[in-house]
Amino acid sequence: MQTSIMRIDCPDQKGIIHAVTGILLNHEFNITQNGEFVDRESMHFFMRTEFAGNSDPLYMHAQLKKLLPEKAHIEILKERKKNIVIMATKESHCLGDLLIRNAFGEINAEIKAVVSNYEKLKNLVEGFGLPFHYTPHDAHSRQQHENIISEIIDNYQPDYIVLAKYMRVLTSSFVSKYKNRLINIHHSFLPAFTGSNPYLQAYQRGVKIIGATAHFVTDLLDEGPIITQDAIHIDHTYGPEEMKQAGRDVEKVVLARALKLVFEDRVFINTNKTIIFE
Amino acid sequence: MQTSIMRIDCPDQKGIIHAVTGILLNHEFNITQNGEFVDRESMHFFMRTEFAGNSDPLYMHAQLKKLLPEKAHIEILKERKKNIVIMATKESHCLGDLLIRNAFGEINAEIKAVVSNYEKLKNLVEGFGLPFHYTPHDAHSRQQHENIISEIIDNYQPDYIVLAKYMRVLTSSFVSKYKNRLINIHHSFLPAFTGSNPYLQAYQRGVKIIGATAHFVTDLLDEGPIITQDAIHIDHTYGPEEMKQAGRDVEKVVLARALKLVFEDRVFINTNKTIIFE
Amino acid sequence: MQTSIMRIDCPDQKGIIHAVTGILLNHEFNITQNGEFVDRESMHFFMRTEFAGNSDPLYMHAQLKKLLPEKAHIEILKERKKNIVIMATKESHCLGDLLIRNAFGEINAEIKAVVSNYEKLKNLVEGFGLPFHYTPHDAHSRQQHENIISEIIDNYQPDYIVLAKYMRVLTSSFVSKYKNRLINIHHSFLPAFTGSNPYLQAYQRGVKIIGATAHFVTDLLDEGPIITQDAIHIDHTYGPEEMKQAGRDVEKVVLARALKLVFEDRVFINTNKTIIFE
Amino acid sequence: MQTSIMRIDCPDQKGIIHAVTGILLNHEFNITQNGEFVDRESMHFFMRTEFAGNSDPLYMHAQLKKLLPEKAHIEILKERKKNIVIMATKESHCLGDLLIRNAFGEINAEIKAVVSNYEKLKNLVEGFGLPFHYTPHDAHSRQQHENIISEIIDNYQPDYIVLAKYMRVLTSSFVSKYKNRLINIHHSFLPAFTGSNPYLQAYQRGVKIIGATAHFVTDLLDEGPIITQDAIHIDHTYGPEEMKQAGRDVEKVVLARALKLVFEDRVFINTNKTIIFE
Repeated sequence: MQTSIMRIDCPDQKGIIHAVTGILLNHEFNITQNGEFVDRESMHFFMRTEFAGNSDPLYMHAQLKKLLPEKAHIEILKERKKNIVIMATKESHCLGDLLIRNAFGEINAEIKAVVSNYEKLKNLVEGFGLPFHYTPHDAHSRQQHENIISEIIDNYQPDYIVLAKYMRVLTSSFVSKYKNRLINIHHSFLPAFTGSNPYLQAYQRGVKIIGATAHFVTDLLDEGPIITQDAIHIDHTYGPEEMKQAGRDVEKVVLARALKLVFEDRVFINTNKTIIFE
Repeated sequence: MQTSIMRIDCPDQKGIIHAVTGILLNHEFNITQNGEFVDRESMHFFMRTEFAGNSDPLYMHAQLKKLLPEKAHIEILKERKKNIVIMATKESHCLGDLLIRNAFGEINAEIKAVVSNYEKLKNLVEGFGLPFHYTPHDAHSRQQHENIISEIIDNYQPDYIVLAKYMRVLTSSFVSKYKNRLINIHHSFLPAFTGSNPYLQAYQRGVKIIGATAHFVTDLLDEGPIITQDAIHIDHTYGPEEMKQAGRDVEKVVLARALKLVFEDRVFINTNKTIIFE
Repeated sequence: MQTSIMRIDCPDQKGIIHAVTGILLNHEFNITQNGEFVDRESMHFFMRTEFAGNSDPLYMHAQLKKLLPEKAHIEILKERKKNIVIMATKESHCLGDLLIRNAFGEINAEIKAVVSNYEKLKNLVEGFGLPFHYTPHDAHSRQQHENIISEIIDNYQPDYIVLAKYMRVLTSSFVSKYKNRLINIHHSFLPAFTGSNPYLQAYQRGVKIIGATAHFVTDLLDEGPIITQDAIHIDHTYGPEEMKQAGRDVEKVVLARALKLVFEDRVFINTNKTIIFE
Repeated sequence: MQTSIMRIDCPDQKGIIHAVTGILLNHEFNITQNGEFVDRESMHFFMRTEFAGNSDPLYMHAQLKKLLPEKAHIEILKERKKNIVIMATKESHCLGDLLIRNAFGEINAEIKAVVSNYEKLKNLVEGFGLPFHYTPHDAHSRQQHENIISEIIDNYQPDYIVLAKYMRVLTSSFVSKYKNRLINIHHSFLPAFTGSNPYLQAYQRGVKIIGATAHFVTDLLDEGPIITQDAIHIDHTYGPEEMKQAGRDVEKVVLARALKLVFEDRVFINTNKTIIFE
């Protein structure tokens, strides 16, 4: 049977769960998973419900609209694979990991294409039978380069764009265009070591753990809502290169974990934070 | 305002959440936290709801009874510190940790007394102004010894009995008497290394991680429902003694974490497993 | 400059480090990394030394032989990529991960070929331009099947054979033939959940952590010397399938970590344990 | 038999290990543990050797002096419990943990006294039979307050001063006076969230891991050489208070681990980093 997902967020008030579950009951839908959360600061309510049954999204939406506060966001989604485009530069570990998962149906998404400002990963991508768009940046202004990329992306109409170690800063206008649809992996446990070469920064500071952070991209570099993070132990024998190597395994696992959560519609963006119903 | 906790489990059927939240709404209670889970194997439903408001437990219980399946277990609890008795042997780390937390209100429980078959921990316990019951086992049969302990425990009418490295096997009758109220910390990641001296077993096997498991005690040694577990990395330089030392920090943190969850009424026992609403 | 690795193990006695470093000094080799360990139980000494310089292995070996106890094992190795053959069945995550690392020079080895009793992974392997040997097992006795595999393997003269989720039990004679050269990834934190379907076992036991173990293969199933292990947290919402999915990320990282250590000649086998100089 | 520890650091050159182990061999000392490291950036050599035997430190020192580069630092230490004074403010978890370990001989140190600017922890400390010095800061300038504390500390001639959640910034002159002898626990994974109230900062940033850092104190707040760090996973349900609670368990374990390493003379300070021979 079809699995559907209902996502609601609105100012908190009494009786929301009762009202919402009443509508599901009227449709005779069986709830298979349910999560709610109230942000104490903003008194905003978030709810994600998985239910078995073939809903008429429009009708259900209308019914919910009537019962919920005026400002409520309501989404009724059928469970489906998300379409994604991946942007990469030269590093193979995150991209390669996603390609393997994609090829064997383990990522809840379909990679439509890969865009890169270098040719290094072409063979890898094409070996998986996927389009690889080589978009060098040297001959273009930043704006022009992004326009080229944007045009490619838009051809595929992706749900999300994944920055799998895409090493160029994006402009405001690019970020705005794909608001809440750009997911990046940063190779440090943010907010430590923002910007470039975090492993060198980590080496210089003499830290004993290194990590990675998957986050939505916003205008402010490395400041977007964090989805997942992890860290591993290192010691004084690690130079920047050893950190980089060890860090790759954290990066790819953290990114894949974040994508799984996003692609299963489990993640809400709450201003600069995320709420995740696992 | 008073916080109350509603705990329900029953065979799954449509409309339970709607029904239950309806009753809370009628009472004008505000739900502050809510968790549900359906065990796919047994199709059994579990729900834990925290709500603000001074409920009349009996009346609410009666209302829920009417709406829920006949076999439903229903609990309406006021949030309160649990009373506990701790059983220990010679090791200080878990007991000491609980005593510190108890002294500074960080464990959601009140330690009423400590029972031990050795005198070694007497000063520690009495230094915190708590009763220490020295109950040596040498002169007694196992049954007699447990009767003495049981009598002491019953004087304090504890909600739970915590085995903070109590190193003697308990009889069936003792375990039955305190069914679902006995919590043990085992110094391995179960089911590996059951029985005695798990660190020596771990050393002999040459493992690269060691761990700890907090679980409810049942008749079958080290087979009870697991509440929390954790593991840490070790290497070949660790002998059994070094493992023991390093393991202590895992044990005490794993036990404290389990107790917090149990004392906040977050843990359901589902035959030989636990369901935990964090 | 060439990096060489000296590996010594022998019964412990005073003066070994002094003697060995004296020989290195006479050759004017610069020690870049050095590790020693004495197993307290067996009073056996282990030493791994990395040094810069182009040694004449035979001459150095002869010199060391004179100074060390008669039973000493001595190896003088030039740092080089190891040749490996991978055996797999149907699962793509460990194999895929190794293929990516191999393609981008991140595994300190060269994959010569992949052998599998199913065809499922053929495209993946050939997409990387590597030979894939499909060796179905149905029409053959276990012995015959292994002979076929063995012949394929021997053509490539690999240093190591990696079982990247090869799901068939190997016979004693196969294991003996490749003694200390077979590395397996087992999908549990051994010694818990040996044998088949460890995630189902883990589900049934209701554990709160799952893990993976990379180990050398010996006659006794899942009893070989452990190289690396790791574990991650799960909760009651994980069925066997969710455990399997989450476990894959641990498996591939644990296997890759073990291989890196083995391929850099950092691992000694000490009866049923490993000693690892990281 | 007495265990001794030799600690050497000097500009790297060929033959150091050979020379040093030669001296140990002449004395017929048996090396039980040995670690070396060369910092590639500064080409500085570090060595820590544990050996069984009753050395004459002065004589051995003189012999080493002759063989090692002029600028070498040489320490020959007998293994012994370190004397420490603890500074605390109001939080009990780190202090309590150290008191328990101290009482049962599990910290390789002897706590001589506790100094605090609040009275809250007096009973706890005195319950363990240890002196508690209440040194309120309100009536004094920062300088005066530190003079009072310094005088108390100096009476006990401690090897190290442990800041177990001491919540006041120390002046340069205090830090200089106890150079390399002040160890602090900071409640974040540095360099993230320096300064005050890191958990609130972490909450506002919406991180998914929180951590703790034990480090030597230097003039620059939260910039001293890091000894140990760890991190744990959290989610959106954690407010600042829940982070604080969960963080306590990381803090106390991270601090205790750092202290064990320092008290066993395993830690070298290498400008703003540490080198640790575990």
